[in-house]
Amino acid sequence: MNKPIAAIVGVGRTDFGEFYERGYMGLALEAGTKAIECAGIEKNEIDGIFIGSFLPEITENQGLISSYFAEELGTNKPIIRNEAACASGGLAVYNACMGIRSGMFDTVLVGGVEKLTNKDATSSLNIAMSNEERQYGFTFPALYASMALRHMHDYGTKREHLAMIAVGNHKHAKDNKHAHFRNQITVETVMNSQPIAYPLTLFDSSPVSDGAAALVLVKPEFAKKFENPIYITGSAYVTDSVGLYAREGTASKESENPFAGFTSIKATKLASEKALEQSGKTLRDIEIVEVHDCFTIEQILALEDMGFCKKGNGGNVVEDSFDNKSSHIVYKTDYGEKIFNCGGGLKADGHPVSATGVRQFVECYEQLSGISGHPVYKNLGKMPDYALTHNIGGTGAAATVHVLEIC
Amino acid sequence: MNKPIAAIVGVGRTDFGEFYERGYMGLALEAGTKAIECAGIEKNEIDGIFIGSFLPEITENQGLISSYFAEELGTNKPIIRNEAACASGGLAVYNACMGIRSGMFDTVLVGGVEKLTNKDATSSLNIAMSNEERQYGFTFPALYASMALRHMHDYGTKREHLAMIAVGNHKHAKDNKHAHFRNQITVETVMNSQPIAYPLTLFDSSPVSDGAAALVLVKPEFAKKFENPIYITGSAYVTDSVGLYAREGTASKESENPFAGFTSIKATKLASEKALEQSGKTLRDIEIVEVHDCFTIEQILALEDMGFCKKGNGGNVVEDSFDNKSSHIVYKTDYGEKIFNCGGGLKADGHPVSATGVRQFVECYEQLSGISGHPVYKNLGKMPDYALTHNIGGTGAAATVHVLEIC
Repeated sequence: MNKPIAAIVGVGRTDFGEFYERGYMGLALEAGTKAIECAGIEKNEIDGIFIGSFLPEITENQGLISSYFAEELGTNKPIIRNEAACASGGLAVYNACMGIRSGMFDTVLVGGVEKLTNKDATSSLNIAMSNEERQYGFTFPALYASMALRHMHDYGTKREHLAMIAVGNHKHAKDNKHAHFRNQITVETVMNSQPIAYPLTLFDSSPVSDGAAALVLVKPEFAKKFENPIYITGSAYVTDSVGLYAREGTASKESENPFAGFTSIKATKLASEKALEQSGKTLRDIEIVEVHDCFTIEQILALEDMGFCKKGNGGNVVEDSFDNKSSHIVYKTDYGEKIFNCGGGLKADGHPVSATGVRQFVECYEQLSGISGHPVYKNLGKMPDYALTHNIGGTGAAATVHVLEIC
Repeated sequence: MNKPIAAIVGVGRTDFGEFYERGYMGLALEAGTKAIECAGIEKNEIDGIFIGSFLPEITENQGLISSYFAEELGTNKPIIRNEAACASGGLAVYNACMGIRSGMFDTVLVGGVEKLTNKDATSSLNIAMSNEERQYGFTFPALYASMALRHMHDYGTKREHLAMIAVGNHKHAKDNKHAHFRNQITVETVMNSQPIAYPLTLFDSSPVSDGAAALVLVKPEFAKKFENPIYITGSAYVTDSVGLYAREGTASKESENPFAGFTSIKATKLASEKALEQSGKTLRDIEIVEVHDCFTIEQILALEDMGFCKKGNGGNVVEDSFDNKSSHIVYKTDYGEKIFNCGGGLKADGHPVSATGVRQFVECYEQLSGISGHPVYKNLGKMPDYALTHNIGGTGAAATVHVLEIC
């Protein structure tokens, strides 16, 4: 194992869903309290808190959110707010890793929280795209639809491939008691559901969810004091243009394929290369992967951009791996069999924006440590030892990738 | 010298003022470019960027600001947004120091930027107070006025003391070519100006400014390669309740003096103790101090809370040090003579929120390295070797304090 960066020693999360009767702070406190209890530590052992939260100024009309937490918790310790749109949770983990590596913190709480049902989520989320995109009337569903269409055009990806991703993620949420949607669906359900932005339908889209997730991270030297430590051995964060049209390989820039930027997310590619290099692992080692499937097309892009298959071949991997009868979809990638989005991903587990990037670690921690209520090991044929999390902001304007290993 | 955390090797800033014709990004780029030129490095030597910005979602209708910068700069490097209301600039420096200490970054650009004249600033800034305070109709001027009134009631602080602070800060801005206000004022100007919230008038209040400031920070081992390196040897960030009424020693909590929390900012006290301890310096060593004088009363609170004089004696220090004829006000503190707010502070240099916490470092760097256009050394009798910066968010819900030393 390469030098570990930090160890996860406790996790907690709320249910994800539409909780009109619950508040932002209550959700955050539930997740944080559970993570602290899971780690078996006292609150005062926490040196600092890293909170991922994208929209509190809009959904809560509350800024200075770090001190809003200080008030609730009655602490003067450093509480650091982390924001990179939908990658705010992943950024919180990245920054917490930085804090631990700096020697300034031994034990930190990392949280992600969002309360989306207070406001019109789509228009609130619009501020994470470029002004030009907003001016021309784009929404995030429309931007991802344009990516899906181009992928279908360039690589022959079928509408059914997208639908199969949704079906698979709903399968994985079936036994996840915290998931927003545990109902089982078919390819037909997805294809015949309400159109959102062609080719994407309602069932291609992650839901508007409320929720929170939290981790206790400690410096590696502390790991062995805990029951189920899981190491983070790779941590990368990469930025790119906020506007999809302004990236490398899009129509606005010279390129061999002037639309390649619509079918590939460079930030995903760079971040996963960096995190894997740091961890000394390859895609072959990775057994479970939590990807940012805000829309079904994004799971195909992630599969390709991280290199699990060749560019353009993601739809075929999905089709070849699809098994309607199995409880899990095991992707047959160029580097072996992997399970993606073990608890349902953003699509079925839910997507309370900043909670998502932290929730991915909760999922991996529970799978790797064997405490998950919806374990994937039977379908993998063994207990997984290695996991990867992938969280993006906007249409790929930011990406965080982390590699996790059992101690 | 205790172990240095990082070295400042280049600084840049824009003019501060009401720039209706200038944009957010243009201001940020001007400051960043100047800092890079000042350091004499190439852009591609920068490993990462830490941006302090509080209100882009509101004033620019732009979120995911990190990637907005990535687009402008054409980079995929980590760009991290830092937000703690008016302490966002100080937090950006604190987090950049963390980044350097972590070993993840050797050379970083730290920026602070705000464009306040796009919107009604007072109501935009209101989101940095607690919901309860807003519901009862408070604004920040009103909250600071309540602190000023209580200080006058408990300690006999005079209205004139507050005015003298404004006069002194305008004196210091006289030769600061970047300052929002370089005009010279009198105690009468302040006392007879437009009432804002009794006892504070227009001239007790920092202005609504646009502007940006930036630093190039490198790891200590790199410092000697540069012409004028200045070390950061202490870096602290402390949080407290977002609501003033909810802090220790306010009416809502049991306390010997049930109003002590209105006349003292605990976050300032804790952060300055921590930063000084880290640096191995005492208040006696510090020669120049940049404090967060968003309203004149706050300069008195900072003087007392950092321990330059006893609680309640700040007004007397100001009166005893006041010299209408001198170009600078030299405070006669319990730990020797100090110059506060060398370039005019928030009051006269201006207060483009998140730029402020970074601008304080620009000021100290220029004073310590001897390149300032408005040097204070003649009034100190020597070139200063040690400086301290103090930046707060809300009414003291967050505070950052840093100690700077010449190499």
